[in-house]
Amino acid sequence: MKIIEGGVCAPKGFLANGVHCGIRKNKTKKDLALIYSEYPASAAAVYTTNKVKGAPLTVTRQNISDGSARAIICNSGNANTCNANGIEIASRTCALIADELNISPSDVVVASTGVIGQPLDIEPIKNSVSSLAGGLNKNGSRDAAEGIMTTDTRLKEIAISFDIGGKECRIGGIAKGSGMIHPNMATMLVFITTDCAISSEMLGRALSSDIASTFNMVSVDGDTSTNDMVCVLANGAAGNDEIVSEGEDFNAFMKALNTLTVDLCRKIAGDGEGASKLLECKVSGALDLENAKIIAKSVICSSLVKTAMFGSDANWGRILCAIGYSGASVDVDTVEVSFESAKGEILVCKNGAGVDFSEDKAKEILLENEIVINIRLGDGNASTTAWGCDLTYEYVRINGDYRT
Amino acid sequence: MKIIEGGVCAPKGFLANGVHCGIRKNKTKKDLALIYSEYPASAAAVYTTNKVKGAPLTVTRQNISDGSARAIICNSGNANTCNANGIEIASRTCALIADELNISPSDVVVASTGVIGQPLDIEPIKNSVSSLAGGLNKNGSRDAAEGIMTTDTRLKEIAISFDIGGKECRIGGIAKGSGMIHPNMATMLVFITTDCAISSEMLGRALSSDIASTFNMVSVDGDTSTNDMVCVLANGAAGNDEIVSEGEDFNAFMKALNTLTVDLCRKIAGDGEGASKLLECKVSGALDLENAKIIAKSVICSSLVKTAMFGSDANWGRILCAIGYSGASVDVDTVEVSFESAKGEILVCKNGAGVDFSEDKAKEILLENEIVINIRLGDGNASTTAWGCDLTYEYVRINGDYRT
Repeated sequence: MKIIEGGVCAPKGFLANGVHCGIRKNKTKKDLALIYSEYPASAAAVYTTNKVKGAPLTVTRQNISDGSARAIICNSGNANTCNANGIEIASRTCALIADELNISPSDVVVASTGVIGQPLDIEPIKNSVSSLAGGLNKNGSRDAAEGIMTTDTRLKEIAISFDIGGKECRIGGIAKGSGMIHPNMATMLVFITTDCAISSEMLGRALSSDIASTFNMVSVDGDTSTNDMVCVLANGAAGNDEIVSEGEDFNAFMKALNTLTVDLCRKIAGDGEGASKLLECKVSGALDLENAKIIAKSVICSSLVKTAMFGSDANWGRILCAIGYSGASVDVDTVEVSFESAKGEILVCKNGAGVDFSEDKAKEILLENEIVINIRLGDGNASTTAWGCDLTYEYVRINGDYRT
Repeated sequence: MKIIEGGVCAPKGFLANGVHCGIRKNKTKKDLALIYSEYPASAAAVYTTNKVKGAPLTVTRQNISDGSARAIICNSGNANTCNANGIEIASRTCALIADELNISPSDVVVASTGVIGQPLDIEPIKNSVSSLAGGLNKNGSRDAAEGIMTTDTRLKEIAISFDIGGKECRIGGIAKGSGMIHPNMATMLVFITTDCAISSEMLGRALSSDIASTFNMVSVDGDTSTNDMVCVLANGAAGNDEIVSEGEDFNAFMKALNTLTVDLCRKIAGDGEGASKLLECKVSGALDLENAKIIAKSVICSSLVKTAMFGSDANWGRILCAIGYSGASVDVDTVEVSFESAKGEILVCKNGAGVDFSEDKAKEILLENEIVINIRLGDGNASTTAWGCDLTYEYVRINGDYRT
């Protein structure tokens, strides 16, 4: 298994493009993305659990109910959510791009991200589908990734090559963060392509299983978006024997998928709105996986932990506090906490109470931009990781006046 | 019923004082508070649900298990939590002040607030109990209120006079905010005194019932503190017939208590760390009280709603989003949202979708420092209110380097 170039276009038979269509006023910002498979593809997706759901999710769910899709179209700048005509606009978007691609509208995955509650004008999309489809190319992953960015500051893409039964397969993905992100089923927008041959049933199983320990363990701000979606298309162009059951091939696929999703989780959390630091909370020794997850999420979501990390302040009491109110079953008298980064690791709490430590060394470790909070419990053998980011002035600035 | 002066000293037979004892380095900041009843008093308290509990809570719970107390001592600057010798220090504090007051150590309520995980030195307390007790006086409520403040910017006290069976009674309270505050049973520190005669059992019942709709509906930052406590002492000095069961007198007491606690909730939320605005979220038309509360809390806790309010941005989509992920049973297609302040009210969402509204008028309303978010649902007849504050640069500054 190795990291390769090309993002969602790395797998055989996938093309992509991204353009500025005019939903956003800033003409230098792409706001419409397209991913296309030259061959029929298995499709699977997971969606937000928010009861307020973006209209595109309703349309997408319907379109991929048969387990197949050929194209993904996504705009940024407008979430097409809480609009009276949302379903109509999402359906028309599918029809317009399907017409250009000579595929069925029911083979289109549609997604939107941006402000909630502002009607989405179909005109900019209508005027751009031709150039969007016409410009599809093998190097288009970056353009597509740019097209789905909102407050993201960094483009998020990755591709991996791996081996299934002697055949080289590839999997690629793009993602957008970076606000309204909180672990609760699928979060954020992630589009994944692979040329691995796998049935839609097994693809769905792989995705649902994977997100429980990856995207669902990311939080930027505790707000679960209305438009979250993770969607994967698998077109089988690699030529491996189709994966139709569990076994060695399925495990190899799961491993590649997990490598890709963990990478995107880290990219999304590290580029959380206003973030200056990626936080990784590793919990071990928990009673069971469920309790490990509750604790890791509670710590990564705490505003007080997040601001302390922003200030490079080894204020471990806030971590104990977040463990205590998490609701998890935990013996707080056995908790051990250390901070770790490229500059080393420092133990700050043992048996639920403070230990003597060098504040200077702690500061040096916490001034890095990737921080690991290690929490070792004495309750059992379960472990997990959650990803988040610090809470900064910039988060407040970005969100204090997002619409204007 | 009317608002009166005097805080916790307004009720007959209560004295208070606050001094700087040296737990804090800043000599101009009081860090030790004392409230004393000249007569035996019924006592009731509620505590944080955080599994990591401050040592003072353990000692207090033991001391008032007989339903009576005479004094409340509280330091700021150190939470005496996650320290190996925490219980010992809290017990010694009780013994030291009891000795000065000639009462039993088991009649002392002890509380601490401040940094978690730093050993609390008994010396400054030991050296100050004499002057603390010696300086007890009828005008000492403000000094006591100052003594329990941490990052609070405003002193929080109130007193009310009311009538029970023809006898004038008084109830007074002081509170400290302003961070690590989130609805989950008792939150923050609140000390209430009353000269109303009421049994400890009825006092406990009144307190538990009241906090469900008051302190438990406040959130500043989503972090439930380890040291939260609401404690009330009732010394019966007003001379009313002791309240020993439900009925007219109990209801009159409940009404006075609720007026006092709602006032303190507003003061705590409005002085939340870094807050520039008090937010009040009023939910009506909910299926039942539980769902009303879930929705009101979800909205008031949303970082995105909080930052939008900081920016005076009528971004109602974030409110719909927070309703949607709250987990409440709600028909999102019937949701109506308006913003209200001293400058008027403006409807921004009806039937779950946006309505045309004047952005200028909305901005004018949201520039005020007390904002009401009205959410009207079509699910039933339950209503509730939650209190919170905006999320600002100042919150990040305060918490980015709290310990140093």
